[in-house]
Amino acid sequence: MASMQSLKKLNKTNVGKEKASKSRAAKLPLATSKTRQPLEVKLAELKRRLLEISDLDAVNSVLNWDHATYMPKGGAAARARHGAMLSRLRHERSIDPALGKLLDALTPYAEDLPYDSDDASLIRVARRDFEKAIKIPADYVARASANSSASYDAWTRARPANDFATMVPYLENSIELSREYADFFAPYEHVADPLIDVAEEGMTAAMITELFSQLKSDLQPIARAISDQPATDDECLRGTFNEVDQLDFSLSVVKRFGYDMDRGRLDKTHHPFCSKFSLGDIRITTRVNESKFGSALFAAMHEAGHAIYEQGIAPELEGTPLGTGTSWGVHESQSRLWENVVGRSRPFWEHFYLSLRDRFPDQLREVSFESFYRAINKVQRSLIRTDADEVTYNLHIMMRFDLELELLEGRLRVKDLPEAWRARMEDSLGISPADDRDGCLQDVHWYGVSTVGGGFQSYTIGNILSAQFYDAAFKAHPTIPHEMRQGEFGTLHRWLRNNLYQNGRKFTPAELLLRATGKAMTTRPYIDYLYGKYGELYRLPQH
Amino acid sequence: MASMQSLKKLNKTNVGKEKASKSRAAKLPLATSKTRQPLEVKLAELKRRLLEISDLDAVNSVLNWDHATYMPKGGAAARARHGAMLSRLRHERSIDPALGKLLDALTPYAEDLPYDSDDASLIRVARRDFEKAIKIPADYVARASANSSASYDAWTRARPANDFATMVPYLENSIELSREYADFFAPYEHVADPLIDVAEEGMTAAMITELFSQLKSDLQPIARAISDQPATDDECLRGTFNEVDQLDFSLSVVKRFGYDMDRGRLDKTHHPFCSKFSLGDIRITTRVNESKFGSALFAAMHEAGHAIYEQGIAPELEGTPLGTGTSWGVHESQSRLWENVVGRSRPFWEHFYLSLRDRFPDQLREVSFESFYRAINKVQRSLIRTDADEVTYNLHIMMRFDLELELLEGRLRVKDLPEAWRARMEDSLGISPADDRDGCLQDVHWYGVSTVGGGFQSYTIGNILSAQFYDAAFKAHPTIPHEMRQGEFGTLHRWLRNNLYQNGRKFTPAELLLRATGKAMTTRPYIDYLYGKYGELYRLPQH
Repeated sequence: MASMQSLKKLNKTNVGKEKASKSRAAKLPLATSKTRQPLEVKLAELKRRLLEISDLDAVNSVLNWDHATYMPKGGAAARARHGAMLSRLRHERSIDPALGKLLDALTPYAEDLPYDSDDASLIRVARRDFEKAIKIPADYVARASANSSASYDAWTRARPANDFATMVPYLENSIELSREYADFFAPYEHVADPLIDVAEEGMTAAMITELFSQLKSDLQPIARAISDQPATDDECLRGTFNEVDQLDFSLSVVKRFGYDMDRGRLDKTHHPFCSKFSLGDIRITTRVNESKFGSALFAAMHEAGHAIYEQGIAPELEGTPLGTGTSWGVHESQSRLWENVVGRSRPFWEHFYLSLRDRFPDQLREVSFESFYRAINKVQRSLIRTDADEVTYNLHIMMRFDLELELLEGRLRVKDLPEAWRARMEDSLGISPADDRDGCLQDVHWYGVSTVGGGFQSYTIGNILSAQFYDAAFKAHPTIPHEMRQGEFGTLHRWLRNNLYQNGRKFTPAELLLRATGKAMTTRPYIDYLYGKYGELYRLPQH
Repeated sequence: MASMQSLKKLNKTNVGKEKASKSRAAKLPLATSKTRQPLEVKLAELKRRLLEISDLDAVNSVLNWDHATYMPKGGAAARARHGAMLSRLRHERSIDPALGKLLDALTPYAEDLPYDSDDASLIRVARRDFEKAIKIPADYVARASANSSASYDAWTRARPANDFATMVPYLENSIELSREYADFFAPYEHVADPLIDVAEEGMTAAMITELFSQLKSDLQPIARAISDQPATDDECLRGTFNEVDQLDFSLSVVKRFGYDMDRGRLDKTHHPFCSKFSLGDIRITTRVNESKFGSALFAAMHEAGHAIYEQGIAPELEGTPLGTGTSWGVHESQSRLWENVVGRSRPFWEHFYLSLRDRFPDQLREVSFESFYRAINKVQRSLIRTDADEVTYNLHIMMRFDLELELLEGRLRVKDLPEAWRARMEDSLGISPADDRDGCLQDVHWYGVSTVGGGFQSYTIGNILSAQFYDAAFKAHPTIPHEMRQGEFGTLHRWLRNNLYQNGRKFTPAELLLRATGKAMTTRPYIDYLYGKYGELYRLPQH
């Protein structure tokens, strides 16, 4: 309110000045506007600075995309240096005191605007980012960037070689960097809290621990009931499915979802990801297994979900801190929604199974729709998170989250991680990997980023939210499943764009969820979804 | 000599100071080294600054490579902005007065060192670059970068659409930018001179005009004699040559040349180029025509020639202004040497023709070695520069060079270029294109860079030098053709690395040529080469 006053006062003063200086107006044509301009000029200057920060990030993303797709191995050392340089340039700009002054000067203006206006949101979020950024020293940013590049590079060799020993110093360094990062935001309740806040603003280790404990008690009866039943036969997914056809089919599907190929592309990589260089260039990647159908397609759907979210952000937010998704969990809700809630659903395949069979006639001629549908939704205890089904997936996440907390707290040493991993797998899923390749080396997350911790929980939050968002869309438009049966996704895509995507980062995850679904986060739609879908495929306990 | 004195004096003074301050040494352990360090510290600071400039260039190269290979069209606008930002950051650093002061301070030290030492060369070349760079205003750099990105993007659509009209304003803008550039270096004898100096340090429009006039009088009798004879039959190159096999074969050849694939890769593009991101990541591109064998392979050899040069630069020069080739003409001499002098030679194909026939058995089973060899060396008047043979190629270049001078002088207007192109083709080669696609729109050069002029001459200089360098290597190692017949290129590659590549940009083109061949530039080896090779394929006049 104080700010509203001061703005009014400023305007009043200006009007007064305008009148007073009227006689000079002809000689000094800029004088009248000059007295009124400061806010506009400051806002333009703020946007110019934020655009440069956004562009430096975008350029770094191009380097990372190239690193993970086409870069020859000889390029790694210089690439790490280039990434570190861009991170440093970005960081210098993100903590520039002049940026802070602009934000201070503009905050009263922002507070006078409606909370959800573009400018108010921009200034509010940029200020929050600035206040976090100034706590992180430049040399830390450089060290963290160099460590993550080198670690990623080592991991791409260490995983196939089942060589955890090589990764120990990298991971120790990452954990040290994580603790160092947390300390910039001390005091905290738990060392993971500042790391979690990067991914899910407003959430803490304690909140997630409670959420996961609740979810676990809901999931366990389902998982237990299914594992007591005979295994689903998924032999129909094995055979020879050539790469080009798998990639072509994947592309045809994600295009139907609404992924705009004039503003995107699909490439191969080790560990699939989505990468954004601008609103006009948002790329996805996948990996192909020619002897088993599924992973290439579902990874492409998953990454397309991320990409569709980013492609749907309002163009006005481009090049600002608002021009991206609001949190990792909300982002993941969209990859999960398109991959699982849509892409593994009965209505979806009622449309697409015929064209898949046309694509792979020899492999699928004898396979009924029902057998195929059951195969791609087979629930089983498995070693690899990315291959896990919707029911057991969260068990993989929860054990990683627990291990991260232990590593960060110092209760678990890095060198003991393989053993701890096996014990936890045994406890959680009743199976254990024969080697680290299928154990603690399987995910890029601990080896390709500068900090460890605060990331994995977003997958499960994403699962929970995917059902909550879909439920809200379905309640608004009950024809959605019918449209899917026609291979149409327009109504769903539009609802998501209007209620989620276009907002970018204007709202916190909690605010966005409330606006879009009218509720705070709840596991109810997710549990209902699992009972509904898997109750049809397996005998489940009363719900 | 003065500098040698001052350095000695400095050291002497330091020694004196050391003694004088001995009593304080225990308290100030850094004091002794501090008095002696300045030059080392300054040199390290110079290298740090130059590395950042080099890294910004490298990052921009990644963006450009991606633009020309994989970028979806929606990415163009932001990509242009990203490139302009990096150019601006680079330019700011390249004209930083602190860099000038460092170079001033280090010049006496450099002048005391042997001329060809790494440090002396670094300081000398960096100073020359700096003195050129400070003449170019930052806003010019930003405008030039934005223009070249937008123009390139428009050209990729305008060429297939045969739409010269769209390109007129871009080209006019580029010519205006070229004149503006030249004016930063006024006074000049010819407006093209400052542009030529970028490519070929020390050369001028007048020198090139004279060189070309001499070459023309040598080439014309050969071209005329051949065009009077029946056309060579090259039908054997037509058919269906699938893309994957063409790319595989091209890769197998350039690897044998010595192109290191751990530090490189081959991709497809519209207009082939070579791109360097670091000594460990130097990539080539080619384009594939499935209905005619040749262009994909020869473009790959050509770009590999550039890449082999860059891969051979001494690692000590990496990240400095010395860590690249010395001029466009010398660079082109290496692409021409590997593409033509080696890659279209009889000894080369005596080894490789059998494996090519194995790769394309149906297409080449009936084709004799001699027919194939004649076909790939067919001399004919053609419309497209990049398809031209070794004899007529230079005629394409000379007419472009003339047109550039006329455009820059204002004697030719851009809108009249298509007509002037046709007239010049008619005059020079006796043929004329049916449309601009095969006329003045065919080359990226006028549409993908910020300045027009000063580039094309380097191709013909490259042709001349390719023969001069090869001649010197052959005189030192007369077994080279014999080795080629075994598919071995080690002796030639080593001679080139030792005499050219490893030096990077330490020497001017003229200095390098003298050191490597013992002579100034001469067209004699090139004319001898043409008579030797084509005298065997056609009846030529007395030489």
